[in-house]
Amino acid sequence: MSTFDEVRRELAALHSELVRTGLVAWTQGNVSARIPGEDLFVIKPSGVSYDELTAASMVVVDLDGERVVEGDHAPSSDAATHAHIYREMPHVGGVAHTHSPYATAWAAVGEPIPCVLTAIADEFGGEIPVGPFARIGGEDVGAGVVATLTGSRSRAVLMRSHGVFTIGEDARDAVKAAVLCEDAARTVALARGLGTPARLHQDDVDALYDRYQNVYGQR
Amino acid sequence: MSTFDEVRRELAALHSELVRTGLVAWTQGNVSARIPGEDLFVIKPSGVSYDELTAASMVVVDLDGERVVEGDHAPSSDAATHAHIYREMPHVGGVAHTHSPYATAWAAVGEPIPCVLTAIADEFGGEIPVGPFARIGGEDVGAGVVATLTGSRSRAVLMRSHGVFTIGEDARDAVKAAVLCEDAARTVALARGLGTPARLHQDDVDALYDRYQNVYGQR
Amino acid sequence: MSTFDEVRRELAALHSELVRTGLVAWTQGNVSARIPGEDLFVIKPSGVSYDELTAASMVVVDLDGERVVEGDHAPSSDAATHAHIYREMPHVGGVAHTHSPYATAWAAVGEPIPCVLTAIADEFGGEIPVGPFARIGGEDVGAGVVATLTGSRSRAVLMRSHGVFTIGEDARDAVKAAVLCEDAARTVALARGLGTPARLHQDDVDALYDRYQNVYGQR
Amino acid sequence: MSTFDEVRRELAALHSELVRTGLVAWTQGNVSARIPGEDLFVIKPSGVSYDELTAASMVVVDLDGERVVEGDHAPSSDAATHAHIYREMPHVGGVAHTHSPYATAWAAVGEPIPCVLTAIADEFGGEIPVGPFARIGGEDVGAGVVATLTGSRSRAVLMRSHGVFTIGEDARDAVKAAVLCEDAARTVALARGLGTPARLHQDDVDALYDRYQNVYGQR
Repeated sequence: MSTFDEVRRELAALHSELVRTGLVAWTQGNVSARIPGEDLFVIKPSGVSYDELTAASMVVVDLDGERVVEGDHAPSSDAATHAHIYREMPHVGGVAHTHSPYATAWAAVGEPIPCVLTAIADEFGGEIPVGPFARIGGEDVGAGVVATLTGSRSRAVLMRSHGVFTIGEDARDAVKAAVLCEDAARTVALARGLGTPARLHQDDVDALYDRYQNVYGQR
Repeated sequence: MSTFDEVRRELAALHSELVRTGLVAWTQGNVSARIPGEDLFVIKPSGVSYDELTAASMVVVDLDGERVVEGDHAPSSDAATHAHIYREMPHVGGVAHTHSPYATAWAAVGEPIPCVLTAIADEFGGEIPVGPFARIGGEDVGAGVVATLTGSRSRAVLMRSHGVFTIGEDARDAVKAAVLCEDAARTVALARGLGTPARLHQDDVDALYDRYQNVYGQR
Repeated sequence: MSTFDEVRRELAALHSELVRTGLVAWTQGNVSARIPGEDLFVIKPSGVSYDELTAASMVVVDLDGERVVEGDHAPSSDAATHAHIYREMPHVGGVAHTHSPYATAWAAVGEPIPCVLTAIADEFGGEIPVGPFARIGGEDVGAGVVATLTGSRSRAVLMRSHGVFTIGEDARDAVKAAVLCEDAARTVALARGLGTPARLHQDDVDALYDRYQNVYGQR
Repeated sequence: MSTFDEVRRELAALHSELVRTGLVAWTQGNVSARIPGEDLFVIKPSGVSYDELTAASMVVVDLDGERVVEGDHAPSSDAATHAHIYREMPHVGGVAHTHSPYATAWAAVGEPIPCVLTAIADEFGGEIPVGPFARIGGEDVGAGVVATLTGSRSRAVLMRSHGVFTIGEDARDAVKAAVLCEDAARTVALARGLGTPARLHQDDVDALYDRYQNVYGQR
């Protein structure tokens, strides 16, 4: 079960990253990773403090019924949402969920974060959209995330009156989207306090997004 | 006196948590814990810096007259408030008090934090209420806390022009409420800078609160 | 020269506190301490980064002409201001100067921080006043600080379009005032974003200030 | 190649400074340094996380074609901008680029940061100007930076809808300008939330700038 162990270690490290970047308070927020080639994913246990989170405390869960396959804890109460996303979006390898303050402020007013910065065009390819309000615990949150992100360039969605869900090719990529979503949410909120930030032209957005997806980083 | 020692150690750790989460400046803010089965509680000494706080510096105080039963320091000048709460609310095992900036900003304008986020419904079961203005040092602050929280689902109260008091089943639970109260205060303040956050429907609030109290965490 | 050494060590520690509490950026901000019984004070060297500040790098300066009596560096370019305060206010044992962001924002708009919180009444005994604009480098800044604080309960002054100066019975007390001034500036600014915080009644301010000065802390 | 090694070590340390001061999120932001006497500069690799950045991972790049002369990674995707600045401004020894939140908020609304604080007059000699919008990746960003900073006292420019570029006599000096630009952006944004900060008179700006450039620091 060495693959499980590696994924668990990485997830523990990524939860520390959420704490370090100020995206989570107390035990809110969670990250999960799909086990490649299996109908399983690994997720944070429910209500465990970040200081006590270890690789060993992570829970391996069945994709179809959120049954615990391995682990001594109950999974995050958001597990049903993560499972729904993995079932409906086969290209997704990681999911992150936070109540990061600025992004959740945009979610509270139900307004997308407009694409007014090159960094937003680079990372999200346009505005960061708002998903519907849904009660936590069942399929509704996951269905809202999938419906909003399907066909969107954005890997982040602001779930109305709730918080942020992000997807990625792996768990680290989902956490990256969560960090940069909060950064965008904060900068644009600060800009709105100063005046009216101008939206980028669509052709600039397209050119920036294309360059960033194809040129940026190490090949 | 090993029970006292254990409570003192936990209180010292919880005060560090207040510092780490940015809820307190200088020596402001304090946490206390009831000694189970006795008319005693343990509380921070007055005016001692957080760097110098140790388990040994915590003070054991009589519930009825705030007489020091054990400890070399004078207790927090808020001890009378904590004592009043323990006397009037027998189910309370821990009390926390902070001037955390966003929550105190709501207290300064005398406005409850509206229940516009699922996290507020989860943790507080509705809006976070405002208590009356009262001079510090006597029974008035404690009486205002008790009057406001009695019959409320909320474990946090914004004392007008002053700061936050939270209660819990133990000291850690009270600190959790203080951390999540500031998180709510901040996110809703940021949302108000962007627009008008919509209140949740009462039946959604009830469903979220019920689920969180009964399903969330490890059983 | 052991007294000098002790003061230097304490000053180095207090400058770390300015960094830790986010009151200073780069090399801005400085603290000084009067040498008891001598016409001397110790102050931060000019333009040295906080990471490189050691007890040994602190500079001992003559009170009357800002002549370096001991130390290998040039003193802070604010030394003339500190010296002026020590000469004119014999009861002052420590001075701190910062450009802490919220307090400096109030200084930029030239508005006192109103006494709308019990913590402001406790520590400052009323509003935190604004001092005049003055060019840096000569006697004008110090004269403005002294003129504003003479006869005021406040140990902090917002120098217009510049930043904060605080005084105290020793350097630690001046740093405490700087920390709590920024805390007040921040909370009241956040409150102004939410509505109109109500001023405390003068008799409440007087009672809170009297209690805090006489009851709070260890006797 | 010992000069390269020294510059690389300093650049790694300066990138840590960007993280510590909250100027960068994830892998955004970069610093470069000209190799004295050669048509070369050293810059951060593209898309590498700050935790993994070491002196060895820094890339030495040719000034004319951004060809990698030494190093195992692809250079920052902003390398063309840095190169353009070094070619056009021979007195520049270091360049920093960030999306620091407050400064980028001013860039998003396309408004210069007005000179309303002595610290802005000291460091920037007047307002911090706005440069044109330009697509990332080619010569346009660098050309906009050079056009805006040529003839300006300011070492920082707010590139519209993008972020901040700063120049300095060396890389540390450019990072200093980035730190103080964000500090100015934040304080003036906070002041705008409170009221209307008054601009300094031009003769005061000139006197402050002259004093700071000639008197401040160790000689």
